[in-house]
Amino acid sequence: MLDFSAKRELLDKVKNMNYDELYEFSEKIRNYMIDVVSKNGGHLASNLGTVELTIALYRVFDPFEDYIIWDTGHQAYTHKLLTGRWEEFKTLRKFGGISGFTNIFEDSVDRFGAGHVGTSIAAALGIEKALNLSKKEANVVVVIGDGALTSGQALEALNQVKSQNSKIKIILNSNGMSIAKNVGGLSILLESLRTSKLYITLKERIKKGMNEGVEFELKKIKEALKVALVGEDFFESIGLKHFGPIDGHDIRTLEEALKQIKAYPYPTVLTVFTTKGKGYHYSEANPTKYHGVEKFDPDTGYFEKPENSYSYSEVFGKTLIKIAEEDDKVVALTAAMPDGTGLTQFSKEFPDRFVDLGITEQSVVTYAGGLSTIGYKPVVAIYSTFLQRAYDQIIHDIALQNLSVLFAIDRAGLVGTDGPTHHGVFDICYLKSIPNMKILTPIDAKDLANMLYTIIKQRNKYSGPIAIRYPRDVEFGNLDEIYGKIEYESPFKWKYINSGKDIALLSVGTLTKEYIEMCKEKNWTLVGVRSVKPLDEESLKEIISNHSFIFTIEEGMINGGFGESVLSYINENLSDEITNVKIKNIGIKDEFITHGTRYELIKLVGLDSESIKKYVEKYVEKFDLKGVKRL
Amino acid sequence: MLDFSAKRELLDKVKNMNYDELYEFSEKIRNYMIDVVSKNGGHLASNLGTVELTIALYRVFDPFEDYIIWDTGHQAYTHKLLTGRWEEFKTLRKFGGISGFTNIFEDSVDRFGAGHVGTSIAAALGIEKALNLSKKEANVVVVIGDGALTSGQALEALNQVKSQNSKIKIILNSNGMSIAKNVGGLSILLESLRTSKLYITLKERIKKGMNEGVEFELKKIKEALKVALVGEDFFESIGLKHFGPIDGHDIRTLEEALKQIKAYPYPTVLTVFTTKGKGYHYSEANPTKYHGVEKFDPDTGYFEKPENSYSYSEVFGKTLIKIAEEDDKVVALTAAMPDGTGLTQFSKEFPDRFVDLGITEQSVVTYAGGLSTIGYKPVVAIYSTFLQRAYDQIIHDIALQNLSVLFAIDRAGLVGTDGPTHHGVFDICYLKSIPNMKILTPIDAKDLANMLYTIIKQRNKYSGPIAIRYPRDVEFGNLDEIYGKIEYESPFKWKYINSGKDIALLSVGTLTKEYIEMCKEKNWTLVGVRSVKPLDEESLKEIISNHSFIFTIEEGMINGGFGESVLSYINENLSDEITNVKIKNIGIKDEFITHGTRYELIKLVGLDSESIKKYVEKYVEKFDLKGVKRL
Repeated sequence: MLDFSAKRELLDKVKNMNYDELYEFSEKIRNYMIDVVSKNGGHLASNLGTVELTIALYRVFDPFEDYIIWDTGHQAYTHKLLTGRWEEFKTLRKFGGISGFTNIFEDSVDRFGAGHVGTSIAAALGIEKALNLSKKEANVVVVIGDGALTSGQALEALNQVKSQNSKIKIILNSNGMSIAKNVGGLSILLESLRTSKLYITLKERIKKGMNEGVEFELKKIKEALKVALVGEDFFESIGLKHFGPIDGHDIRTLEEALKQIKAYPYPTVLTVFTTKGKGYHYSEANPTKYHGVEKFDPDTGYFEKPENSYSYSEVFGKTLIKIAEEDDKVVALTAAMPDGTGLTQFSKEFPDRFVDLGITEQSVVTYAGGLSTIGYKPVVAIYSTFLQRAYDQIIHDIALQNLSVLFAIDRAGLVGTDGPTHHGVFDICYLKSIPNMKILTPIDAKDLANMLYTIIKQRNKYSGPIAIRYPRDVEFGNLDEIYGKIEYESPFKWKYINSGKDIALLSVGTLTKEYIEMCKEKNWTLVGVRSVKPLDEESLKEIISNHSFIFTIEEGMINGGFGESVLSYINENLSDEITNVKIKNIGIKDEFITHGTRYELIKLVGLDSESIKKYVEKYVEKFDLKGVKRL
Repeated sequence: MLDFSAKRELLDKVKNMNYDELYEFSEKIRNYMIDVVSKNGGHLASNLGTVELTIALYRVFDPFEDYIIWDTGHQAYTHKLLTGRWEEFKTLRKFGGISGFTNIFEDSVDRFGAGHVGTSIAAALGIEKALNLSKKEANVVVVIGDGALTSGQALEALNQVKSQNSKIKIILNSNGMSIAKNVGGLSILLESLRTSKLYITLKERIKKGMNEGVEFELKKIKEALKVALVGEDFFESIGLKHFGPIDGHDIRTLEEALKQIKAYPYPTVLTVFTTKGKGYHYSEANPTKYHGVEKFDPDTGYFEKPENSYSYSEVFGKTLIKIAEEDDKVVALTAAMPDGTGLTQFSKEFPDRFVDLGITEQSVVTYAGGLSTIGYKPVVAIYSTFLQRAYDQIIHDIALQNLSVLFAIDRAGLVGTDGPTHHGVFDICYLKSIPNMKILTPIDAKDLANMLYTIIKQRNKYSGPIAIRYPRDVEFGNLDEIYGKIEYESPFKWKYINSGKDIALLSVGTLTKEYIEMCKEKNWTLVGVRSVKPLDEESLKEIISNHSFIFTIEEGMINGGFGESVLSYINENLSDEITNVKIKNIGIKDEFITHGTRYELIKLVGLDSESIKKYVEKYVEKFDLKGVKRL
């Protein structure tokens, strides 16, 4: 048995507070969160929404004895605060500090780490099974958002609850949105509940009871909770008892309901309605904007954004608008990330040609395949890490059928403070072994714009599945200048950025810019690798014949990445001729990368220009400049 | 507009048949199917179940004008027969013949290719969107099994139907099972419908009407169809109108219902009950056994199985029983494949420690993660191609948390007649870039048994995620002999099978056996690569220092595979020392591989010993035996 006594000090205090004290404490938590997140960045809106819910939950269940699993892990700040990480919370998302998500390495009371949506129910069923097999008594509770519940992973596990004879309790934290607007039949159902008479009556009844200072009308609430929901009920149809909906900011009502479901010996869903961004004026007004944020000014809600800068997501979104104006076959698709992927403006200008299916990457990819079979030009904008969910669909529905779906892979590479669940470091590896797939890596914003324009406008020439990956980063300058100069440019040709001698760096993607000064200074050749697959064989041959040392550099795993493709190509096609050229692959070694700012992490893995310079110099000093080893 | 006139000849005849003729024709189709499948192998049970359904569907909708999408594609034989492939059907699954699944390259009336479950609804929504955008009028119809509907991919798309203002028609082909026994709350619901009074009444009413020879009681059926289902309805709860259930073998009732939903301007689900294996004594009695089959004797139902042989799946299943007898922490998990993965006997001997979650690979993997956090030793048995569905979960829920989940990857490599949707040729590539993941490739049955035994029994020593891949193949001999000799053996050491000189073959997996004779004859070294990750560095260094030519051989993609890891390792660690050793990677080139027998395909991709011999000899003749190129 682990000793949690030191960690549960605050929790024990909370268990003894009266309701006035609890609401006061909720306020304190909120202010603390806003303070820390305004400095460190983080998931503000979702965490402001779960303060009272967590307090009530942890007064009824015990996080150290029971198994509470927070889906997606981005609504668990109060959980962290109540389980012994009050001080550490100041280090939230900082390099070396605590994670913005639940993390089993950070604390064993984080029962199952998360970051991607919808994993909680399956994990909970596995945990419950293990507890049953070992005859341990403990409650297993899941807290999942209504957005996460629309993911296939969550839905398939939800459908499995009944057949396991499970007793798990699922708290459905319904805030009427996932990250952006919610999608799907289930959300329509929940929205109708939200505005239904039953819910309003219950809320009003509770308010009335409290205002009049009379004894809290427990009995009435219990009755109301037991009322079957009006109309068809999704959860009941698959064998789950459905309680609620109740007000997720009313601690007393929450506790009553939680006690009821705790005593109920069957699998149960309790729907609680919360307000995303609750208690902070700016985030309540615009919860999507404050979903996952960078540093901001808590007094004005203004984000610190470097002046005169634009993100690659913006470049993507604006370019796609320009293309869609010229080509009515373009359809943009996203999985609940219109803001994050830069598609919000597109969705307003072309509502008919914008598809947001919610957090359902599998569906989005296959849907795009359907569009393509009828002659449309789908552009699927999904973060690299989330596209992992649709790996099978990319192979089976798109590549095998050689359909012309364009994947705009945002957040490729190291994403920064979101950490290992969110880094987009596998995409080159998981895409390059797929036949028909092409992988492009623009070296700057102009390149991204030109590639998009060229491929989409000339889809007959550039057909089949194509992925374009770009990072979570900004470039400085005036974005409008790029749009004045968009032009057709072969997407598969590499580009000499600097022509030097003896040593050549083959740099994948936008980090290329970082190395320009260094290469000029050192007289090294710098090549922007704009296409990882296919390789630009002509350029590669030329570079090999003119240099003694080649260093491949990529913001992704070395194992299975671009560098290995270069080795393989040379070995297969040129090795009989070459003996002296030395090739070294630089990238991310075989380990998961922690959280920190993007630049901290780039330095950590050795992809900053200083590290690259040291690496190259150290390596080449072993040889003379023709690549022959010194004695 | 495509001209389908020649292809629609049979369909037009069917449209003009009376009901007696239709049932007679159904019988003809069934006999033809049994005949062909008994010779060629195929998905018998599911296709015997959809004969009348397809006939009725194509008399009401038109497959050439409408968009009919067959989920999973393994229930579409009647579709193929009715759309112009009657003669070609004899070539079913044969090398160069037609596919066992829908395939857009085979015929454009196969509107969306399939093979994995649950893709149909998302594809249909994409197709419908494209039709709407281009203002084309056509019906979009999906036929999906109740097993497929439990997959996350299907559920998330189902939830999206309502919000798209779709009019798609979903025919839920409910046969009470997926591949094996069905799982989940939804299946409990469907099962209760199946035995509900409404359905029986309807069936009886129709029978009565027909027996008495009176005018078919259309009106009554219509009424019955319109009756809301008793109790909560899953589909209605997410905004879909639900008709049925009706008898899926009654053509007239089917047509009535289909006409109704065709006229209904909203998204609709029609549940039809069919009998899997219908009309063939042996498959009705045991539909799981006749789900996907090899050649069999149509008169006796006996499968032709090589005498005195056992499959790797059997080896896995039996070994796991032995281990589970000794270790009560072992839990076996499968995604609807207890038979296919060899776990049926295990499920009987250890019902508490056997988990089948249905066709939900995502859930299964995360669930296993949950088990592992509580100290259990989960073994996840999933086919290589289906495990692609859980790629994100492997990274995010298992590897990132370094949980000790063992992946038993069956059907790795070329699976044979199921073809490109089912080949397991990507697993090495998609797993090797994941930190913490280890990939093992036993070289024969004994090796597989020893590896399983060693790892599971010594999980503290061999912790973290480990994948063991083995093919759809048999070995000859007496399986019991293996069990008498199971022993601990380091899973990460490579094995010299033959010690020769100058030339070494590094062979991944069970194909190694194919090369023994050749290597003895040619005096080549043959090394069984039992561990793809980590590489056995000690052996590799030794082999390099003793040979001039190394050939890596793997039953998987070259791009991102084992061979590239060898190149990368040598380049990183040894290249400064070595100039003369030549390395060549042999495996599957960058293209999808068609269907055919396993051996035909192995020859096609050049992995049979004859092809390897030619390749090696042709390559080395360019050099002298020390690896120096001849002039």
